[in-house]
Amino acid sequence: MPTPLALFNPPPRLLMGPGPINADPRVLRAMSAPLLGQYDPAFRQLMRDTQELYRQVFETRNRATVLVDGTARAGIEAILVSLICPGDIVLVPVFGRFGNLLCEIAARCGADVRRVEATWGTVFSLETIDAALQKHRPRLLAMCQGDTSTTMCQPLEGLGELCRANGVISYVDATASIAGNPLPVDEWKLDAVSVGLQKCLGGPAGISPITLSDAVVERIEARKHLEAGLQAAGYQPGSGPRIASNYFDLAMIVGYWEHGLNHHTEATTMLYAAYECARILLEEGLAAAHARHRLHCQALQAGLVAMGLRLFGDRTHQMQNVTGIYVPNEVDGEAVRRTLLSDFGIEIGTSFGPLAGVIWRIGTMGYNAQRTAVLQTLACLAATLRIHGMNLPSDGVAEAIQVYP
Amino acid sequence: MPTPLALFNPPPRLLMGPGPINADPRVLRAMSAPLLGQYDPAFRQLMRDTQELYRQVFETRNRATVLVDGTARAGIEAILVSLICPGDIVLVPVFGRFGNLLCEIAARCGADVRRVEATWGTVFSLETIDAALQKHRPRLLAMCQGDTSTTMCQPLEGLGELCRANGVISYVDATASIAGNPLPVDEWKLDAVSVGLQKCLGGPAGISPITLSDAVVERIEARKHLEAGLQAAGYQPGSGPRIASNYFDLAMIVGYWEHGLNHHTEATTMLYAAYECARILLEEGLAAAHARHRLHCQALQAGLVAMGLRLFGDRTHQMQNVTGIYVPNEVDGEAVRRTLLSDFGIEIGTSFGPLAGVIWRIGTMGYNAQRTAVLQTLACLAATLRIHGMNLPSDGVAEAIQVYP
Repeated sequence: MPTPLALFNPPPRLLMGPGPINADPRVLRAMSAPLLGQYDPAFRQLMRDTQELYRQVFETRNRATVLVDGTARAGIEAILVSLICPGDIVLVPVFGRFGNLLCEIAARCGADVRRVEATWGTVFSLETIDAALQKHRPRLLAMCQGDTSTTMCQPLEGLGELCRANGVISYVDATASIAGNPLPVDEWKLDAVSVGLQKCLGGPAGISPITLSDAVVERIEARKHLEAGLQAAGYQPGSGPRIASNYFDLAMIVGYWEHGLNHHTEATTMLYAAYECARILLEEGLAAAHARHRLHCQALQAGLVAMGLRLFGDRTHQMQNVTGIYVPNEVDGEAVRRTLLSDFGIEIGTSFGPLAGVIWRIGTMGYNAQRTAVLQTLACLAATLRIHGMNLPSDGVAEAIQVYP
Repeated sequence: MPTPLALFNPPPRLLMGPGPINADPRVLRAMSAPLLGQYDPAFRQLMRDTQELYRQVFETRNRATVLVDGTARAGIEAILVSLICPGDIVLVPVFGRFGNLLCEIAARCGADVRRVEATWGTVFSLETIDAALQKHRPRLLAMCQGDTSTTMCQPLEGLGELCRANGVISYVDATASIAGNPLPVDEWKLDAVSVGLQKCLGGPAGISPITLSDAVVERIEARKHLEAGLQAAGYQPGSGPRIASNYFDLAMIVGYWEHGLNHHTEATTMLYAAYECARILLEEGLAAAHARHRLHCQALQAGLVAMGLRLFGDRTHQMQNVTGIYVPNEVDGEAVRRTLLSDFGIEIGTSFGPLAGVIWRIGTMGYNAQRTAVLQTLACLAATLRIHGMNLPSDGVAEAIQVYP
């Protein structure tokens, strides 16, 4: 190896997979801002402003709207490890790979995990979830809103209310759906939600915005634990079992955000990114962003169908930002992806589990939920399929253009 | 609140506290590069190159030299939670606040934590540690190299050997010391080391480089656990107890780095930062970087002494990148810091625990271990102390300049 290596110059890529996608250039520019100390008054103000922006993103008045330093999975684990006491029954309705992940993390937190399953490509009815709640009597229900592995979007209206009526805390992982699909947290009475930046929010992975209802905060505060050396800060311990993680201890993290409790050293640049992602989204407006995702997803799908490809899954419950398509029998799905990447610089997604090799997944999200990205993808996918020997009725471009107003 | 808020423009700051410090502008520029998909061949190559760079930073041949997505504390917790089985005896020699943190995290991982303590401002002799090893017979020894809370640098030569002779795994948190003080991991026979970017490496917090000896990897691999849905990837489970965290499961994280196992979505931009930080350091050379930190720290200290201030702690075991100074009796330490920040844009550090209000801490690290930063700090600190009514024999600038060749 030459020492030291050259400056890293990434090759040009249009990232049309299920995430990460190309970050909005505004976000990348925002990340070049100089650092600040984390107790600088200007930085504390930035933190408060970022909280307020994410309250708007989540459509919530939850005071405890904060960010966890790590990828979306860090937000998930922070919520689960802070909420779950060993032995707690946790119900996870699983409709894809990321439901499995919730089970996995909850089990590691010591939960007694109860799964209900929906066939990949479908979602749950509220009745099914209600029946599972009655059967398992969990303390916590954890599920995804959008699961990119299947492209399905679980309807959540009524879920929070149902949980509250049963004394169950509801937690939703909305990483893949936020900003591309409606998620009015307060209206839907959800207790805890976590997301990431790398999908429809148009940023890089590395920080996870979360929001917690007052009831959740109360439960977590009961597990507050004094870290040696911080006792002078007037930090009163709770009576509940200590949270098994220090890094993901939301009692401390909320204390850090709200009262300046010393915990981690802030990932300042990621916070700059999160701030700018929210700003971009709120400038556009939530409803407009949802409509934009719907439009470009529809245009893409019109093009794919015109190309003769078959869409995957329950069409009435699809996410508005990622599309599954069956890999045609005539081609090797991975070989097509390789050609598309190496010859056209366009990345689309492969799949997991029962769908591995069966479907491709194409994202139209965040900065890439725009006309040029959709039409480039269609034209180049069609060209690639032709390279791989397929006869296509159309490259799908004209049909996609017809969808646009 | 106006919706949406304005672009965030941080005020000008010279960050001379114990970290974070001003990131090298090269690192900030590197973070503006477009994202890549995490299984893009170009990205996998970047990962391998980054591993190789950090092997050089750590002076190790450890294959398992990888990065954890989170702040320095994430690296600590990943190592401790992956290595500690509930009930394991863990010995922590504590000589400052970050030793307390290691105890705290180890306890949450279920360890039977045994502390030995050194008065803040001193370090341990190898004999003291040896005696503690004989007394407690731990499975793991965990300690800091540099603890910024006291500015002390624990001598580590012989420690790894001593641990290996006793069948004990050694783990060192070198977040605050790496790149400013020598840490030849292999020569010193250390088994596991974690760091962060935000000190002498000159980057933002948010990703944590770690290195693990083969013996540590073997122990962690024995705790491999199959995540539902990943079983097709040929991932064989181990027989040891499951690691209590998914996010920090180093068996999976090492699998992700070495074999492309699907785990988290990479914090791409933070990886770009880590790559550039290492490149800058290795261009300069480790020995040159250590000498530079020593020089600027000495210049700063010469200036502070000339100003009539008194240095804190055992002078023979100080870190080369952060200096403690007693707050003079005549002034309110926090009021001085506020003036220095608001009128001069310079941040210096306060302190924790027994040293709270007793000392200030001034860092000379990474990008700020340079002449202009040192002289600005001295001139402006002197001016601030005069504003607060002190008579100083000198502003320390001429005396600092004399230290420079």
